[in-house]
Amino acid sequence: MQPHKTTIINDPIYGFITIPNGVIFNLIQHPYFQRLRRISQMGLSYLVYPGAHHTRFHHAVGCLHIMQKALETLRNKGVAISNEEEEATLIAILLHDIGHGPFSHAMEHSIVDGVHHELISLYFMEALNAEFNGSLTLAIKIFKGSYERAFLNQLVSGQLDMDRTDYLKRDSFYTGMAEGNINTERIIAMLCVKDDNLVVSPKGIYTVEKFLVARRLMYWTVYLHKTSLVAEQLITRVLKRAKELSHKGISLPASSALLYFLKNKITKGNFTPEILETFSKLDDYDIISAMKEWCEHDDFVLRELSKCIINRDLPKVKIRKKAFAKAKLDKQKAALVERFGISEYEASYFVFTGTISNQAYNYTHGGINILTDNYKVVDIVKASDQLSLKSLTKAVVKNYICYPKPKG
Amino acid sequence: MQPHKTTIINDPIYGFITIPNGVIFNLIQHPYFQRLRRISQMGLSYLVYPGAHHTRFHHAVGCLHIMQKALETLRNKGVAISNEEEEATLIAILLHDIGHGPFSHAMEHSIVDGVHHELISLYFMEALNAEFNGSLTLAIKIFKGSYERAFLNQLVSGQLDMDRTDYLKRDSFYTGMAEGNINTERIIAMLCVKDDNLVVSPKGIYTVEKFLVARRLMYWTVYLHKTSLVAEQLITRVLKRAKELSHKGISLPASSALLYFLKNKITKGNFTPEILETFSKLDDYDIISAMKEWCEHDDFVLRELSKCIINRDLPKVKIRKKAFAKAKLDKQKAALVERFGISEYEASYFVFTGTISNQAYNYTHGGINILTDNYKVVDIVKASDQLSLKSLTKAVVKNYICYPKPKG
Amino acid sequence: MQPHKTTIINDPIYGFITIPNGVIFNLIQHPYFQRLRRISQMGLSYLVYPGAHHTRFHHAVGCLHIMQKALETLRNKGVAISNEEEEATLIAILLHDIGHGPFSHAMEHSIVDGVHHELISLYFMEALNAEFNGSLTLAIKIFKGSYERAFLNQLVSGQLDMDRTDYLKRDSFYTGMAEGNINTERIIAMLCVKDDNLVVSPKGIYTVEKFLVARRLMYWTVYLHKTSLVAEQLITRVLKRAKELSHKGISLPASSALLYFLKNKITKGNFTPEILETFSKLDDYDIISAMKEWCEHDDFVLRELSKCIINRDLPKVKIRKKAFAKAKLDKQKAALVERFGISEYEASYFVFTGTISNQAYNYTHGGINILTDNYKVVDIVKASDQLSLKSLTKAVVKNYICYPKPKG
Amino acid sequence: MQPHKTTIINDPIYGFITIPNGVIFNLIQHPYFQRLRRISQMGLSYLVYPGAHHTRFHHAVGCLHIMQKALETLRNKGVAISNEEEEATLIAILLHDIGHGPFSHAMEHSIVDGVHHELISLYFMEALNAEFNGSLTLAIKIFKGSYERAFLNQLVSGQLDMDRTDYLKRDSFYTGMAEGNINTERIIAMLCVKDDNLVVSPKGIYTVEKFLVARRLMYWTVYLHKTSLVAEQLITRVLKRAKELSHKGISLPASSALLYFLKNKITKGNFTPEILETFSKLDDYDIISAMKEWCEHDDFVLRELSKCIINRDLPKVKIRKKAFAKAKLDKQKAALVERFGISEYEASYFVFTGTISNQAYNYTHGGINILTDNYKVVDIVKASDQLSLKSLTKAVVKNYICYPKPKG
Repeated sequence: MQPHKTTIINDPIYGFITIPNGVIFNLIQHPYFQRLRRISQMGLSYLVYPGAHHTRFHHAVGCLHIMQKALETLRNKGVAISNEEEEATLIAILLHDIGHGPFSHAMEHSIVDGVHHELISLYFMEALNAEFNGSLTLAIKIFKGSYERAFLNQLVSGQLDMDRTDYLKRDSFYTGMAEGNINTERIIAMLCVKDDNLVVSPKGIYTVEKFLVARRLMYWTVYLHKTSLVAEQLITRVLKRAKELSHKGISLPASSALLYFLKNKITKGNFTPEILETFSKLDDYDIISAMKEWCEHDDFVLRELSKCIINRDLPKVKIRKKAFAKAKLDKQKAALVERFGISEYEASYFVFTGTISNQAYNYTHGGINILTDNYKVVDIVKASDQLSLKSLTKAVVKNYICYPKPKG
Repeated sequence: MQPHKTTIINDPIYGFITIPNGVIFNLIQHPYFQRLRRISQMGLSYLVYPGAHHTRFHHAVGCLHIMQKALETLRNKGVAISNEEEEATLIAILLHDIGHGPFSHAMEHSIVDGVHHELISLYFMEALNAEFNGSLTLAIKIFKGSYERAFLNQLVSGQLDMDRTDYLKRDSFYTGMAEGNINTERIIAMLCVKDDNLVVSPKGIYTVEKFLVARRLMYWTVYLHKTSLVAEQLITRVLKRAKELSHKGISLPASSALLYFLKNKITKGNFTPEILETFSKLDDYDIISAMKEWCEHDDFVLRELSKCIINRDLPKVKIRKKAFAKAKLDKQKAALVERFGISEYEASYFVFTGTISNQAYNYTHGGINILTDNYKVVDIVKASDQLSLKSLTKAVVKNYICYPKPKG
Repeated sequence: MQPHKTTIINDPIYGFITIPNGVIFNLIQHPYFQRLRRISQMGLSYLVYPGAHHTRFHHAVGCLHIMQKALETLRNKGVAISNEEEEATLIAILLHDIGHGPFSHAMEHSIVDGVHHELISLYFMEALNAEFNGSLTLAIKIFKGSYERAFLNQLVSGQLDMDRTDYLKRDSFYTGMAEGNINTERIIAMLCVKDDNLVVSPKGIYTVEKFLVARRLMYWTVYLHKTSLVAEQLITRVLKRAKELSHKGISLPASSALLYFLKNKITKGNFTPEILETFSKLDDYDIISAMKEWCEHDDFVLRELSKCIINRDLPKVKIRKKAFAKAKLDKQKAALVERFGISEYEASYFVFTGTISNQAYNYTHGGINILTDNYKVVDIVKASDQLSLKSLTKAVVKNYICYPKPKG
Repeated sequence: MQPHKTTIINDPIYGFITIPNGVIFNLIQHPYFQRLRRISQMGLSYLVYPGAHHTRFHHAVGCLHIMQKALETLRNKGVAISNEEEEATLIAILLHDIGHGPFSHAMEHSIVDGVHHELISLYFMEALNAEFNGSLTLAIKIFKGSYERAFLNQLVSGQLDMDRTDYLKRDSFYTGMAEGNINTERIIAMLCVKDDNLVVSPKGIYTVEKFLVARRLMYWTVYLHKTSLVAEQLITRVLKRAKELSHKGISLPASSALLYFLKNKITKGNFTPEILETFSKLDDYDIISAMKEWCEHDDFVLRELSKCIINRDLPKVKIRKKAFAKAKLDKQKAALVERFGISEYEASYFVFTGTISNQAYNYTHGGINILTDNYKVVDIVKASDQLSLKSLTKAVVKNYICYPKPKG
């Protein structure tokens, strides 16, 4: 037998990650994928957690690794998975996030106009499929959920998929928020397949509950941390303002790729292959570099918002259950109009409210199923002996307000 | 300033543990405390988790360490704690478990007759207080909860005390059940004191919830693991049988200390200082060594139960929500009577049912209080934004049945 | 394909350890192997490192795990290994330490008379081979080094074998001596086979050096720690004294197995299968329990030595390069004779000198070979670019003296 | 006592890092320091180790943390350290690397002309000292080594300083190169002060040796990894080419700060406060963003080098002890001239040789001193019982050659 040639990558979390040679290796080498090295997995969260500089590249490679483990585990349990299915599922998870732009959530409402990153991932996969002579056809089917063996798609994108499994572990590791740590090895060991659907073995109930609680904890203490939240809001507003100025014909220093997206309104309807190519040039470096230059711009709004982010001199933010009164908002805006001689519209870039919400477990969109001892499939909420899991299905909504610190 | 002389102990969990010289150092040196090196923290759980050989000695020293951290943290937050209070609280946590006997839960219903280990801990502390010229007086007050500053007792024994904090972390570490891991550093960082009562800062809610979920997980997957459960039941029955034989005048090889407790019925009423001294000779080695000898004993019940444990050849056990029917029990007993020619009473040593239960959070006995943003104190269940914590207050009860494997 | 049925064991170090069903599973179930649960891997080192209560059972199972990884790695590199060879090598590593008695190094010069534990391991394997109908024949060949493919034996017992790889990692983990930690995953990844001999790939040089330095560090700071050293010396002397008294006809409380070895002189020449069976009953519990009883014995030497160990009230020990003068020894002995009215011979149980030595790398007995870039095999000392490795080949010898603390 | 108000930062390595309020907090908030968030600690090493995206900001804060521990440890050992000395030493270590530019080693020979980053650190400290009304005066003395208590400077910059201690641990953690991991807690515990000089306690010898071996391992396998090496060489050459083109008047897209340094030759002689201000705008984002734009530039050399880095399409590199012959170099250059029609000079941007070297321990520049048992101070090489440490003092030199991969 010819030894399987492989490339090994060091990973602080899993030790060694093995990249099988062939299509997968070549996809990783492709500039489209290498671009993910320049996109932070957690946006600006490093302003709160200085360790959180890990990239989407690293996350994608981590997903590849645990998907290998998951498929191996299922095969050892007797689930038939062909080599073609294995490769396709690995490709699907490797590329599932390739459509993310820089500061993705901010960008979806500024750089592009309502084009979701999953759709852009699909565009990239189709472009790569053409370049790789159709080697991604099955991967695309699995990614889109149109392949008949549902569990392969569920491993890529479901309530307990390898994407979430990796990012919870990775984000917890890099932020140092140890409580978010989950046991990927045990989660994978608990997976089974029944009628081509992913199920969890009965003794996996506590592991899944722990996973859901860890996920909720990560949402409320990390992803929705008030400082991350405000930084993301500011970056959305910087880009919106830049677009506004650009449409008015005001000149802005920025990379050519970023300028393209500032000048043009890109929607699902007009997203051509050429635009995809330009999009593939865009990463965190374009945005941060532009903001660094904008710290000297004439426009008050663009300049001051940029400085807030670059120098980490962030406004005040409060979070609570009850909505904030419009009067409070107006008062803060008026103070700003008075203080800087700007218009009320301009002030609204600095003073705003909004809501955040999280639902730890959503069983209406394909839940987590438990295989009971007598081989029935039950939603985990019903299988559990406690109300605890049920309570995680309730969405929690909170309100926030954001305004500049008073001058001191 | 004279440098504080200290002894340092290596700990796989916390790194270095510092033992302040003086009374605490001398208490650790005392044979009563050194005895804890010979008592397994988790009884026979190492039959399931081969790494779980850590001792009550190690746990007690770990508690000492995190109590030092907790007191330091509270002082840094402005809580006044005198040097006497500090030393007394450290002594109280160090000795809180000193009354544990070998395989404590089994022993409380066999070796002694309803004498709880906490009471024996108190007897040991009083004996040591006499030997150490009254140096433990305040520690005993804190241990008993009769000191006016309640938070010191709550740190020793409460819903979020340093005992639980250490044992959850330690048991999770040594069993390799990573999901039970809790962040002791963060839990301690969240503690505050209001009106001399322990409270948790508002942003500690998720940390506490994580703690409670981890605790529940440890109960159901580790402490109440069916193999641990059956091993503990067997050891209780071995000791009960040995006592029975001993009372009948049948000779049994055993250490002198163990023989004393097999021959005499010790209750709260007759627990003299001499008995305490004999008790202090008793540890895991007496029990395991006796069972090893009993593997050759003439009595069928004593011999076969001992062999089950020593050779880890354990009976079958089933756990479920619904109680098991008496008919099932009777059928199994009858089979045993038939198979080995023993009496029905003897068969009941091998065939039995029972219940196990766990309540992750019990707020009727002094709950966990949150200090809200406007300095009110609220039970965590009310402060939380979800039903999740509430659901943890519900006790869960399960039934088990245990019987020998059919001969194969 | 029929799924491979397996049993899973939780391990704090490797996560999950998978036990293949069949012979290996049955060997682990055997009382001979279960006995290893009652033998501490590091003897009395837990008197220094309270976490070091891991057992030879746990180590053996850990070795099994990394041997599985090593064989899998070599196969992936194209080394042909048959299923029979795989199983035999796994059995050989699983059982390589089965002949260890309690406090093995102490015992080899007291309980038995110069019968090395490796020989007893072989006796156990042969007994098991008879019981398992010859299933261990190839394993025994590999263990003895008489199988033609040398690398399989080298993985079991060589300069870089799976035994050392596991115990260094495990002992470092449980003592909390983090500096001894080695990267088993990387060591295994560096292994290759050339002409049926184990070699290390060129980029493994630093990893091997790190392994050797870690090993040396563990020797000098853990295995030869002065407190462990003195405890081991004391236990040897307790057993020697017990044997002496026993031969004089003085009655001693002890388990029947221990009594047998105290009364009889067992050498290589008279080690019968019956003796093996009695030996298989002997573990740490016999020794510790006996010493606990001996704390009350009439004989001064037996009693006082036992109390030293049981209550961890250890004598003074000094370590230095230069040998200690006989005069110093005599003076200490004389003080003891005077203080307790004992004979000079009896005093020599408490006052003694000796030497310890360690050689981190011994290339005369089958070294570590590096496969150079042009496929030559060179001893690592020659392949390395520094003197550093060479220096590790030099044996270091130190002297110690031990005597009771002056009364205070 | 007024509680000490502090800010807490999560760190994946140390858990919680506590920032004392006051000058140190304000220094961290300063844009000069926040800039370090945008400078990768390990340059382009993330092209080899995808986890290595940690920043100089994070390292500086980590150094602050362990310096706090080191000073606390020394105080506990009776070393008098005033509050002023403590704050000044913390400031010195916090700012010791503030003068690093992006891809520092590359930059020192391209962006600036032989201005060492330590000198720029000093310029920053002086500028901050002016802004903070002289609060940094003592810190600057300690940094420069002109304060009379040498050990404070040795903790900032010596053979065993907190800088190295943090970066070895941190780089090992983020690369996943576990063998480089060192035990910072134990290193700190081993530190003492004798006659105002830093010494190591006798039992610290093995810990220091482990530290030096880990450091050497990190050099040869991580810092001098051939891929990191070639990436650093390429980035130096890109910047050199950009400067060349810029001096010829060729227009280059780049940030205003970068353009300034490309157009002007900055040496120690002409480094004014204004230049410092411009330098403070420069970080990784300027360099990477510029190279992204240069991927489309007309100049062959600038474009192709930029593409190599951005798309991680790196040339071949070989490392060996023997120097490479000039003929080999010429042959590779000639091939390139032929293949792309470029000049020989232009080809020399892609084909080059050089040397790398490392000396694990240099005792001529202030070594590591051991305090022997009889309170003498000896260099660790002499105190050690082995040749091992001595061998680490020998510098190792290797040669490399780099040239484009043949077209495939």
